[in-house]
Amino acid sequence: MAGSTFGNLFRITTWGESHGKGIGVVVDGCPAGLSLSEEMVQQYLNRRKPGQTKYSTPRKEEDLIEFLSGTFEGKTTGTPLSMVLYNKTQRSADYSEIARYYRPGHADYTFDQKYGFRDYRGGGRSSGRETAGRVAGGAVAAELLKSMGIEVFAYSKAIAGVTIDEKKAAKENIMKSPLFMPDLDASSEAEERLMKCMEAQDSAGGIIECIVRGLPAGVGEPVFDKLDAKLAQAVMSIGAVKGVEIGDGFQAAGSHASSFNDAFAMDGDRVVKKSNHAGGILGGISDGSDIVLRAAIKPTPSIAKQQQSVNRDGEEISINIKGRHDPVIVPRAVVVVETMVAATILDMLMMSMTSRLDNMKKFFDR
Amino acid sequence: MAGSTFGNLFRITTWGESHGKGIGVVVDGCPAGLSLSEEMVQQYLNRRKPGQTKYSTPRKEEDLIEFLSGTFEGKTTGTPLSMVLYNKTQRSADYSEIARYYRPGHADYTFDQKYGFRDYRGGGRSSGRETAGRVAGGAVAAELLKSMGIEVFAYSKAIAGVTIDEKKAAKENIMKSPLFMPDLDASSEAEERLMKCMEAQDSAGGIIECIVRGLPAGVGEPVFDKLDAKLAQAVMSIGAVKGVEIGDGFQAAGSHASSFNDAFAMDGDRVVKKSNHAGGILGGISDGSDIVLRAAIKPTPSIAKQQQSVNRDGEEISINIKGRHDPVIVPRAVVVVETMVAATILDMLMMSMTSRLDNMKKFFDR
Amino acid sequence: MAGSTFGNLFRITTWGESHGKGIGVVVDGCPAGLSLSEEMVQQYLNRRKPGQTKYSTPRKEEDLIEFLSGTFEGKTTGTPLSMVLYNKTQRSADYSEIARYYRPGHADYTFDQKYGFRDYRGGGRSSGRETAGRVAGGAVAAELLKSMGIEVFAYSKAIAGVTIDEKKAAKENIMKSPLFMPDLDASSEAEERLMKCMEAQDSAGGIIECIVRGLPAGVGEPVFDKLDAKLAQAVMSIGAVKGVEIGDGFQAAGSHASSFNDAFAMDGDRVVKKSNHAGGILGGISDGSDIVLRAAIKPTPSIAKQQQSVNRDGEEISINIKGRHDPVIVPRAVVVVETMVAATILDMLMMSMTSRLDNMKKFFDR
Amino acid sequence: MAGSTFGNLFRITTWGESHGKGIGVVVDGCPAGLSLSEEMVQQYLNRRKPGQTKYSTPRKEEDLIEFLSGTFEGKTTGTPLSMVLYNKTQRSADYSEIARYYRPGHADYTFDQKYGFRDYRGGGRSSGRETAGRVAGGAVAAELLKSMGIEVFAYSKAIAGVTIDEKKAAKENIMKSPLFMPDLDASSEAEERLMKCMEAQDSAGGIIECIVRGLPAGVGEPVFDKLDAKLAQAVMSIGAVKGVEIGDGFQAAGSHASSFNDAFAMDGDRVVKKSNHAGGILGGISDGSDIVLRAAIKPTPSIAKQQQSVNRDGEEISINIKGRHDPVIVPRAVVVVETMVAATILDMLMMSMTSRLDNMKKFFDR
Repeated sequence: MAGSTFGNLFRITTWGESHGKGIGVVVDGCPAGLSLSEEMVQQYLNRRKPGQTKYSTPRKEEDLIEFLSGTFEGKTTGTPLSMVLYNKTQRSADYSEIARYYRPGHADYTFDQKYGFRDYRGGGRSSGRETAGRVAGGAVAAELLKSMGIEVFAYSKAIAGVTIDEKKAAKENIMKSPLFMPDLDASSEAEERLMKCMEAQDSAGGIIECIVRGLPAGVGEPVFDKLDAKLAQAVMSIGAVKGVEIGDGFQAAGSHASSFNDAFAMDGDRVVKKSNHAGGILGGISDGSDIVLRAAIKPTPSIAKQQQSVNRDGEEISINIKGRHDPVIVPRAVVVVETMVAATILDMLMMSMTSRLDNMKKFFDR
Repeated sequence: MAGSTFGNLFRITTWGESHGKGIGVVVDGCPAGLSLSEEMVQQYLNRRKPGQTKYSTPRKEEDLIEFLSGTFEGKTTGTPLSMVLYNKTQRSADYSEIARYYRPGHADYTFDQKYGFRDYRGGGRSSGRETAGRVAGGAVAAELLKSMGIEVFAYSKAIAGVTIDEKKAAKENIMKSPLFMPDLDASSEAEERLMKCMEAQDSAGGIIECIVRGLPAGVGEPVFDKLDAKLAQAVMSIGAVKGVEIGDGFQAAGSHASSFNDAFAMDGDRVVKKSNHAGGILGGISDGSDIVLRAAIKPTPSIAKQQQSVNRDGEEISINIKGRHDPVIVPRAVVVVETMVAATILDMLMMSMTSRLDNMKKFFDR
Repeated sequence: MAGSTFGNLFRITTWGESHGKGIGVVVDGCPAGLSLSEEMVQQYLNRRKPGQTKYSTPRKEEDLIEFLSGTFEGKTTGTPLSMVLYNKTQRSADYSEIARYYRPGHADYTFDQKYGFRDYRGGGRSSGRETAGRVAGGAVAAELLKSMGIEVFAYSKAIAGVTIDEKKAAKENIMKSPLFMPDLDASSEAEERLMKCMEAQDSAGGIIECIVRGLPAGVGEPVFDKLDAKLAQAVMSIGAVKGVEIGDGFQAAGSHASSFNDAFAMDGDRVVKKSNHAGGILGGISDGSDIVLRAAIKPTPSIAKQQQSVNRDGEEISINIKGRHDPVIVPRAVVVVETMVAATILDMLMMSMTSRLDNMKKFFDR
Repeated sequence: MAGSTFGNLFRITTWGESHGKGIGVVVDGCPAGLSLSEEMVQQYLNRRKPGQTKYSTPRKEEDLIEFLSGTFEGKTTGTPLSMVLYNKTQRSADYSEIARYYRPGHADYTFDQKYGFRDYRGGGRSSGRETAGRVAGGAVAAELLKSMGIEVFAYSKAIAGVTIDEKKAAKENIMKSPLFMPDLDASSEAEERLMKCMEAQDSAGGIIECIVRGLPAGVGEPVFDKLDAKLAQAVMSIGAVKGVEIGDGFQAAGSHASSFNDAFAMDGDRVVKKSNHAGGILGGISDGSDIVLRAAIKPTPSIAKQQQSVNRDGEEISINIKGRHDPVIVPRAVVVVETMVAATILDMLMMSMTSRLDNMKKFFDR
């Protein structure tokens, strides 16, 4: 499991299993001098914390973040920031069943194939709980970007087949909806659908949209490390994501250049685009417009409904997954998308500082 | 422009501008002992070569690949494989106009913002011609995978709004369609639409689908370097791609787990899945089914139709891009997707060799 | 402070300050299935623990390692192994003085220049205590290598100007000497010199030698990632190291090829070398002989003797560093060299698995 | 043979075999706007060119560098710079002998062990000719550093047992000595020794010293990517290097802190060090003094004198290596050390730009 590190200059390395001692992250490459407290990071974690509404698993984890290194007198020192969330709920539940069979839609089978065995308690490392480490790490990036005037925010665009109406959606509504859906009518409708889903012992998926505002033009490396390519990796690496698109995304496939191309115009002495079908990225480099990204989230795989599977002895079986599970993962995943995007944007912003020799010279001539 | 290297163990580093001396790639980390000839790589390049049908730019590049290092007596030696395509068409065209304004949908503006100036001849490094290097590098991966019984193939799934009918699509039809569309009826219809597009001085987009067959279960690192995450980066890094999805992709967002989850079953003593909504990846790790991936391709940005833009002096202008351009990039991009997927799959396959200590021990006990 | 991660396939990421909450390491890429316990790692840490002899600082840290993730039922799972040593001695010492001036031979000045300020408590991240994280991470590599029949061991070759006599040195003596010097006469003599050093309020340096036994031929990537090059980085990255050499090292500079070249010969059907001036590496690749490496360690910079320095206000001052400090760091650094070498060897061993296509095919044909 | 790429932000990827079509390098991450010509790079290559004095192999390669991409109108564009040296001398020499046995001190045996076979013509990839690619790539770094007032230069400190007298050595003498030895008396003496060496059909080694002048304090990442650690990897990765030391290096092992520590003092309002035993690096970070580094070079392994070896059939044999070879590699390696140091310094300088948030904010506030 190499591949627990993300980023080049701003790097996060996560660790931890669902029912081990804890979940954590080491942030390396955070510039010195950022005001940062456990409370600031906690705000992000609270948005993915389970047990907050009837649409999320009732597991009660306080999920209190603790800093173990990297800050001094309230500021980052430039040294690695180690953060940990100790698991409180290490319930000695009966995992003997789950240990022996493969849950459909989960990584039980693939972990066994890859590693020969697995920590089956609550999904181990493949649990959605793994994302807590990312959120803590990405929260640092989000706070640093905010201090530079760059804002990253995400929300539920669609849940259980209900899509928000852009005209009714308002950013300030995001936190008013238990589903983080900024069109509150759509939010209510989606809640109803989720109730039905739960009655049917089933689960639903949805779409998360993320916006980056205030990013200067010129960020992104134009071949394999295009800004959109790195964002795609970052977002697709979140457990339940099955698709990622930028700007018009899959809609672009059916359009024509005459309507898809964004015309340039002047706004005073500033170059602007009259539309943003491109989602803020041209040739892999930010163009100064909002970055617009969407992620498709699959339905939560754990459902109570009967499913067909096999066990480790090669027998076909019918299973009913016990316990209560999130009927939809989308609302809790909103902050995961947001922080992964923030981590990517910061890393690429830092990378962009060496694009021009004249700027490098000015930097060192200070 | 760091970011011209892709992969960890199997790495490709590309270079070259549209109208410079050539385009090339260095492949590092290719295992020793693969039978490889210029002819083998040429087959892949021929599929993206311009000027073959009326739907692609008539620029006549022979695009003959030349090996400069890395093979000996017909086999790879394990040392870096340097390949080059010399540009024959270094037309001293009049680029004075394009040098001064920003073409909508192109990277002219963002390159200027990032680097301060740009090689404007034919788009320089941001030209679609950049992909020739990727194709040559990825072709090596595809050939190596083929020698191990792993097949990677791609085709046009939709063009100009026409989507293939899965029932009518046959793999052997891919090469029979000038658009690489395996449903030949859809292919004809798409051709008609393209003709109209060209008459309207406009361009169209489409969707490419790629399948990986024969990949063993257990490939992919399960957090940030999930197999789907690395594939998403690889494919999104191709110039015109605006979206990537795995398996049901964005469809999954509107579905329920009861229908989306793939049930496990036994086929003799082998674990199989009864469906493949997941697209062959569970928890970021291959599950032994086909990998299924789709990429959304935007309409070619260069069109003859009048467009609004600005120039480097900050003046708003109307432009008509001269010359003939591809009315659709999808057919030529098919092999680009295919080879980028191959490069990713091989790299992750190599990474997976160290997942289990018992397998490592057997390897060195030979 | 990116640069807290070492290795490509077997990666260690360390964090922690001398007087913060703790010191730790995340090991990513450790193959699944290695039997590993906290006790096993503790054995390595005990060898660098302070306060054991009169030649090391009396700071009493129990340095008990705790696993937070990555093992299950006594075996590594393939997921990241997070290990932590909580700092017990967070003495609220008076650091107001050290906070304001720059200790000669320390990183106080350079940290201030790089980051603008620093966690001055006990040296913060630049403290020798940082190496505890490396030792824990490298111990995992050493144990894995041991399970494959590859042994890594180090010892003091010279201390305070006293060098061991190879004829009197015996591997089993290493642990009998408080200085880890395998020639016990030399060890006694070095102890006497250290006593005089301490009386003079001064400190001494020395040389550590490390041997790798049982490594197969063929390990190492032959250009920039030569086995010796990666070992040089690994060992030079240890705080007090000022030089690294392989085999005859600097002696080779004054020799002739007729005596320096190692002749090949047959030992039954095995190719062997009649001598090992090369130190087990030819062209950056292991040749099957012992790897032999030496590191030059500078005298501990903290001494009680008066020294000249400056403070943050730009005033020249005379300082006497308070407290007791190690009069020599060499014995405690022995295990640091050993474990860094182990981490490097394992990483390169894993890298070597993809050198040959025929071996890859056999691996996947199992 | 992954491991053909060096550097993180400024990256060089080399390729090519001694008797293949050519040798080359791709430089990725070079900032846009550097004035660069083939002539500038050629100056560096000329210093390692064979056949210039009686102390180097008479192989006549013109070694004319050609740029294939990455510059436009005399300046770097920020895109990858591809450079190639076509091999003129692809003599169809009789390599049948060398193909079958293992030359002592060469990588023939280890390549066979690693890859199963090798391109034996002139040593293939393990030839000293491989360094031409590094020199071309590092020359770009050296030129960029020069434009920022940072100077990197190297010279022969010892050859065949003759060491320069620092008092007689003058930088301006370097180019006056055919051995690049700045003490001309020592140079003459070394020449005499080399003549005797050649008569004896033997070869000699030596020591190269490299100085970096003008590097600001604060460069280097303080754990695994210490400036000295990365320099050690860079320099040890050069074929014949057996040891690397910084500042007093191995001398430090026998010294005491009271004399080794460099005292700080004020020079006007600037902090300076009164001595430079540390070689310009404290805690892995540059301190503003000159960086001082030395590399130990082994005697050229190819000698005419009879040697014992084995062949691929497992037979013990006596060999006499034919042809004329460099009796010492040191003079030609001087520029290799210099350019590898330059590449490392530039990469770490670029890395250091993100150490402090306040500096990042100023950069983007422009």
